[in-house]
Amino acid sequence: MKVAKFGGTSLANAEQIKKVCNIIRADKDRRLVVVSAPGKRYKDDKKVTDLLISYAEAFLKNGVAQQEKQAVFERYQEIVQELGLSSEVGQQIEAELEEVLSNRAGLSSERFVDAVKAAGEDNSAKVVAHYLRSLGEDAHYVNPREAGMLVTDEAGNAHVLPAAYEKLKQLRDRQGIIIFPGFFGYSEAGELVTFSRGGSDITGSILAAAVKASVYENFTDVDSVYVVNPNLVENPVEIKVITYREMRELSYSGFSVFHEEALIPAYQAEIPVCIKNTNNPSAPGTMIVSEREPSANRVSGVASDSGFCSIYVSKYLMNKEIGFGRKLLQILEEEGLSYEHTPSGIDNISVILRERDLTPAKEARIVERIKTELQVDDIAVQHDLALVMIVGEGMRQSVGTSARATAALAAAEINLDMINQGSSEVSMMFGVKASDADRAVIALYQAFFVQDEVELAKQDRHMTSMMR
Amino acid sequence: MKVAKFGGTSLANAEQIKKVCNIIRADKDRRLVVVSAPGKRYKDDKKVTDLLISYAEAFLKNGVAQQEKQAVFERYQEIVQELGLSSEVGQQIEAELEEVLSNRAGLSSERFVDAVKAAGEDNSAKVVAHYLRSLGEDAHYVNPREAGMLVTDEAGNAHVLPAAYEKLKQLRDRQGIIIFPGFFGYSEAGELVTFSRGGSDITGSILAAAVKASVYENFTDVDSVYVVNPNLVENPVEIKVITYREMRELSYSGFSVFHEEALIPAYQAEIPVCIKNTNNPSAPGTMIVSEREPSANRVSGVASDSGFCSIYVSKYLMNKEIGFGRKLLQILEEEGLSYEHTPSGIDNISVILRERDLTPAKEARIVERIKTELQVDDIAVQHDLALVMIVGEGMRQSVGTSARATAALAAAEINLDMINQGSSEVSMMFGVKASDADRAVIALYQAFFVQDEVELAKQDRHMTSMMR
Repeated sequence: MKVAKFGGTSLANAEQIKKVCNIIRADKDRRLVVVSAPGKRYKDDKKVTDLLISYAEAFLKNGVAQQEKQAVFERYQEIVQELGLSSEVGQQIEAELEEVLSNRAGLSSERFVDAVKAAGEDNSAKVVAHYLRSLGEDAHYVNPREAGMLVTDEAGNAHVLPAAYEKLKQLRDRQGIIIFPGFFGYSEAGELVTFSRGGSDITGSILAAAVKASVYENFTDVDSVYVVNPNLVENPVEIKVITYREMRELSYSGFSVFHEEALIPAYQAEIPVCIKNTNNPSAPGTMIVSEREPSANRVSGVASDSGFCSIYVSKYLMNKEIGFGRKLLQILEEEGLSYEHTPSGIDNISVILRERDLTPAKEARIVERIKTELQVDDIAVQHDLALVMIVGEGMRQSVGTSARATAALAAAEINLDMINQGSSEVSMMFGVKASDADRAVIALYQAFFVQDEVELAKQDRHMTSMMR
Repeated sequence: MKVAKFGGTSLANAEQIKKVCNIIRADKDRRLVVVSAPGKRYKDDKKVTDLLISYAEAFLKNGVAQQEKQAVFERYQEIVQELGLSSEVGQQIEAELEEVLSNRAGLSSERFVDAVKAAGEDNSAKVVAHYLRSLGEDAHYVNPREAGMLVTDEAGNAHVLPAAYEKLKQLRDRQGIIIFPGFFGYSEAGELVTFSRGGSDITGSILAAAVKASVYENFTDVDSVYVVNPNLVENPVEIKVITYREMRELSYSGFSVFHEEALIPAYQAEIPVCIKNTNNPSAPGTMIVSEREPSANRVSGVASDSGFCSIYVSKYLMNKEIGFGRKLLQILEEEGLSYEHTPSGIDNISVILRERDLTPAKEARIVERIKTELQVDDIAVQHDLALVMIVGEGMRQSVGTSARATAALAAAEINLDMINQGSSEVSMMFGVKASDADRAVIALYQAFFVQDEVELAKQDRHMTSMMR
């Protein structure tokens, strides 16, 4: 049994939904399907979820929001019509949507917003189920309440409850194709609660873990995950197989293919995830797995993220002072800051953190506290840093990865403010000026992916000439 | 005014003391001289301080220790005789020594041990003053109590009190050459207390800071500090100038030229320190300064230290958990462990610590606590690590230092378990297997000191051929 999840662009209009249904029908193992709300049909279009949020906000403010409601209705009307579904189906969907949008009684504002937002996915699922049935498939919409998608009662930020898995597991035994709306579940008290934005990925991951799917297919609008940001490099190398740990490190530094939390249930249940393209389903896509065969190239991806700063502290004999580091981190914690890394020398330590968290007032207060409470010799805050990262499971066993990376950065004349490589060696991280980040990524991509290809081509030619 | 401190081997016998006095007389700015107790005359000899400790221990145990006392007396008798000092001087020194060694009344064991130990330096100073006077110099023994060497009342581990500096400053105004015994001071209540072992370096540093010396000369038995351990490399490059920060990083990882705490007073008062050789005083020695001119070679030294281990911890989404690192460090602190470094990836962190601090029982307890209290996915302890370090003030501005270092290590086929480079860039650190440490040091020495020389020689030849 496969769980297939389709994103917003895959549901944006009738044409896309037809592709989705073709994909479902092409593999009879695709028996549990999760759908998002219809996304953008063209660049400046609005996602249905955004239309629903506008509606909810206007309704809460004015008690009525006819124009906003109409915008939502029109999207579904267009889809129903173009799919050639019967007018009964259209009327039924409209009536059910109308009920959700008008039912303000007894609901707090938060719950009302959650209920309205969830209608986007809910009606997507109904439409897809109707359409598949119209094609003769045994497809059924399943409501998350009925199926047992139990979540915490945190409006707009629900988390799955452990009890959910036992109930959802029973979906295995249902006949036909299940069409399941993403993005929301129900609290133990039976109230509808949504996940955080983009949460249909989470629904799919939970279902895949619950039914022990052979694979969790996540259909988007790209052929695969690339080893580097395709905006920086033309036709970059595609990632065929990657581990959860690698994916997580890459997601951290700018790879935004997948909702970060969404990987957890699949990761814990060791369900492989496959990122595929609705518009090109024959492309193999990218597999995310627990473990992978080591490849010739030990590096799986190059990424970067900017918006970091560092607080550098030095104190003579700091190294001999038990608890110094802990006290420093405690000051940051008391100021509500989480930190990213703490590279250190003997008598100095730098704390790398996200710049957005450090307001000028907070910075001044922290600097003052560190000076007076820790009696440091020197403190300096450096802004506009970027972290550039190479990620790869095989790096740990590979002598020379760091040599190749630092040589490439030196050749590009990029100064390294920081190098951080932990015992894990799934990643190696370089702190550079934000203005150098793109050049650094390109240099590392060249070193690990292009030069390698050139090497391989050379070897090939060598082999060919030897065989003559 | 210069402060000159002479170590134990420089005072070991009459011949050495004559060298010391020649050095003092060769520069009339050398007006404040600190001496250690007589050290070893040959490889298997005993230091006077060790003889005194044996005496004190035996005396405390048996109430008498004639043989041990005799051993101490003989050392001074030999020195007095061979220096050709008068029998009155010999008798006076013996009488004063006898008084200290016999005066157990009213002293705790700790205080008695401190008083006996201090007699080594105290009598060295008296002998040197007598000998200089016999040569016609205006030299005077000065007692630390009279001079105002005020210290905390921690037997065997005293620290200077801030009030001492104001009093010691007045030594500037004395006539002639002051001979000052190292290693001890007096508490505010007037009790004799010693510094930690090797503390004559501390006395010299305090005096240099107090009198604002133009330089603090520290005479030992080596021509200079070398850029690498001379046991690993034949005729290594000498360090001419080095900063306090560099010296401190090198001291940390195996360079034991100087008592670690001893640099603090000189560092804070910005007094340059010069390491010189009593047996070859014309050699320029090594200067330790606050700041230095950047040199062509950005690296000042290569060092390593073994006996480290790492605790590796990983947890999915660790990065999003505010306070995770702090809690981890708190567990270590509660178990009385200080840590050295904490390199980290996104969802993993390693803590590097000294292996000697981690008993098997402690290790088991810490692993258990981290598992249960922090709910980590994975934890692993790795033993037998070494830290190899390159140190240099200029590294921060130098593109390519890390490239050169990692290339050298890769060429030597040394796998890097860790790379740690902070924002300070006074040092760059590599975690390797302890069995690889020496090879790593040699590879880095070759890369930064030998290959550079080859490069320079090449350039020279090139210049020469161009000029022809």
